[in-house]
Amino acid sequence: MIVEKKFKKLSKPFITERGYVLKELIVSYEEYGRDDGPVIFIAHGGLSDQHAAGKYSEEELLQGWWDGLIGEGKAIDTNKYRIISASSLGSACACLGIEGGTTSPLTLNPHTNKNYGPDFPEITLIDMVKVFKSFLDDMGIEKLFMMAGPSMGSLQSLQMAALYPDFVDSVVAVATAGRMTPGGMAMHNFITETAKSDPEFNGGWYEIGKPKWALRIIHQISKIYYTSHHGIKEICWDTVPEGKDSQSLRNANCKNYVTGNIDAQIYGRDLNCYIRVIDAINTYDLGRDDNSYEEGVKRIKCPVLLMNINTDSEFPPEYAFEVADILNSKKPNSARARVIKSNWGHLGCLREVTALDKEIREFIKEIN
Amino acid sequence: MIVEKKFKKLSKPFITERGYVLKELIVSYEEYGRDDGPVIFIAHGGLSDQHAAGKYSEEELLQGWWDGLIGEGKAIDTNKYRIISASSLGSACACLGIEGGTTSPLTLNPHTNKNYGPDFPEITLIDMVKVFKSFLDDMGIEKLFMMAGPSMGSLQSLQMAALYPDFVDSVVAVATAGRMTPGGMAMHNFITETAKSDPEFNGGWYEIGKPKWALRIIHQISKIYYTSHHGIKEICWDTVPEGKDSQSLRNANCKNYVTGNIDAQIYGRDLNCYIRVIDAINTYDLGRDDNSYEEGVKRIKCPVLLMNINTDSEFPPEYAFEVADILNSKKPNSARARVIKSNWGHLGCLREVTALDKEIREFIKEIN
Repeated sequence: MIVEKKFKKLSKPFITERGYVLKELIVSYEEYGRDDGPVIFIAHGGLSDQHAAGKYSEEELLQGWWDGLIGEGKAIDTNKYRIISASSLGSACACLGIEGGTTSPLTLNPHTNKNYGPDFPEITLIDMVKVFKSFLDDMGIEKLFMMAGPSMGSLQSLQMAALYPDFVDSVVAVATAGRMTPGGMAMHNFITETAKSDPEFNGGWYEIGKPKWALRIIHQISKIYYTSHHGIKEICWDTVPEGKDSQSLRNANCKNYVTGNIDAQIYGRDLNCYIRVIDAINTYDLGRDDNSYEEGVKRIKCPVLLMNINTDSEFPPEYAFEVADILNSKKPNSARARVIKSNWGHLGCLREVTALDKEIREFIKEIN
Repeated sequence: MIVEKKFKKLSKPFITERGYVLKELIVSYEEYGRDDGPVIFIAHGGLSDQHAAGKYSEEELLQGWWDGLIGEGKAIDTNKYRIISASSLGSACACLGIEGGTTSPLTLNPHTNKNYGPDFPEITLIDMVKVFKSFLDDMGIEKLFMMAGPSMGSLQSLQMAALYPDFVDSVVAVATAGRMTPGGMAMHNFITETAKSDPEFNGGWYEIGKPKWALRIIHQISKIYYTSHHGIKEICWDTVPEGKDSQSLRNANCKNYVTGNIDAQIYGRDLNCYIRVIDAINTYDLGRDDNSYEEGVKRIKCPVLLMNINTDSEFPPEYAFEVADILNSKKPNSARARVIKSNWGHLGCLREVTALDKEIREFIKEIN
């Protein structure tokens, strides 16, 4: 499936929750499937971007990150649905190089004629969701058949359903919670602290593309924290037969797993973007503006499928069950929580295509 | 208990496995308990040092890291045993400032009159154990009633019992395995890569005490990787009552947990030492010089107590059971594997004093 990068300028300026006016707001996105029909909106993970499926050209080696789920005859079926995937406010879009993407610290600031950089406002997860809503309004979309995504995308999906309960008809949330979790908060603070401590950070006024030290650290540790020792064993250990030098070979595999090819992986990533996006994720709390957390969760009216990975340190299964229990106490059987077994920890939300596919298909059958 | 730092110069030069001659080798250590009686030798964790119990002076705020287990009437009873704790070859001894400690990259190189720095040889875990053996020989100790330790100390204890089966009468190994684990190998490679990428690393020829970035990164991520999201929840989350700003307060707690007071924590630590010690841990493999891993493990003749923490990503329980099963297949009931339940992941090996105490007492009763 060949897909096209698209851009839409919002019809109105956007005012963040903390009162900053973004005069011109561009959203970058791509579409898969039908031009008409029920709309499924896909939201991406924190360090990711809109490129959820297909390839931009035949020459590209890799598909989008949920290509196993989105396509002809797949669980998110391009034969049946109009599927849109957009990049979040504040995100660096590695897929687009440093010139493209939704408005972010990389975007030109019309007031100063240089990129926003650290002048880009602090944003909340609700800001990201409101930008998506404005974008979808401008696209003429009156209802979402479904909003779906992994990790940050799952939080945005639940938040959208809570903020606009008549707009969202169903949610699929993978690696998720109703508010940011302790493990996630701690890791996010490590990431932003590391980003700011890059020797070339210069208060955020670095030459774009230049700081690499912190990006390397962040992407290397992500391969440990956002996976699981089971997954590391699978690819670094079990692939080496028992023998005289097995431990040395395993160590070499582990070193290569963590540190290999790192500069290719950090290409197009940006520290200011990471700081803004990750701080935004840490604001996530469905109950923030209500009298209690539970009251906030209960704003969601639609059916919800929540799937967490058994080995995930950031979103362990209990957080999916917590949200499901609250929703079901209000409307029985409206929410389903599932545990996806994976060696891959948090990254199971991308890798465990077979299990996710099966659950999504069953969910769609039930809600139709 | 007030304890004294001591130093012993080994009677002979030490030759590493890779053929480097350390002409003068000093071991720093401390002693607790009796001057006579059965000897218990304590070995420390990878980023730690000899200061296992007591205080150097009344003014000190903190006790040694296993003070809950070592003392009058405690599981490792100073009324009954002569207890020695020594710093490993290659370790930086934060407790001693940068002037003290066992021979390491910080020590003066007699050939060059500056500190060894990156000229300090690459060492193996077996090198560390052989240095301990030479030290104990020079101390006139003919047998160990027990060797015990957490993490790297547990690996050294098992390695000592395998290398010198007639020298060690029992082992207590906490947070352990028979060879380095996949999760541990990956994390260690992250740590050493981070250390070498410190902007002031300069090939290891930095001004001692000056590089801080990498040390900060390492110590911050250790608070996430070497603990568990359960522990983070316990101190950052559950301490905040539900309410309007609970998530903001929790986020502030998480940030403080990860990043707070970090310069005090890295004081006296050294990147070259970390690199040498951590690379040494990654060489650990009881089966290295045998026809199989199992054969190597079976060199151990004495009773062994292995205790792993249920939430430990580096040494999950299965690695304790693996060693116990191999030993028991040779000599039934010679090895006991226990799972210690903890919210604290790997750091449970220091924190779960009550559970560790109980198991060690029972073990000592059985072997006496």
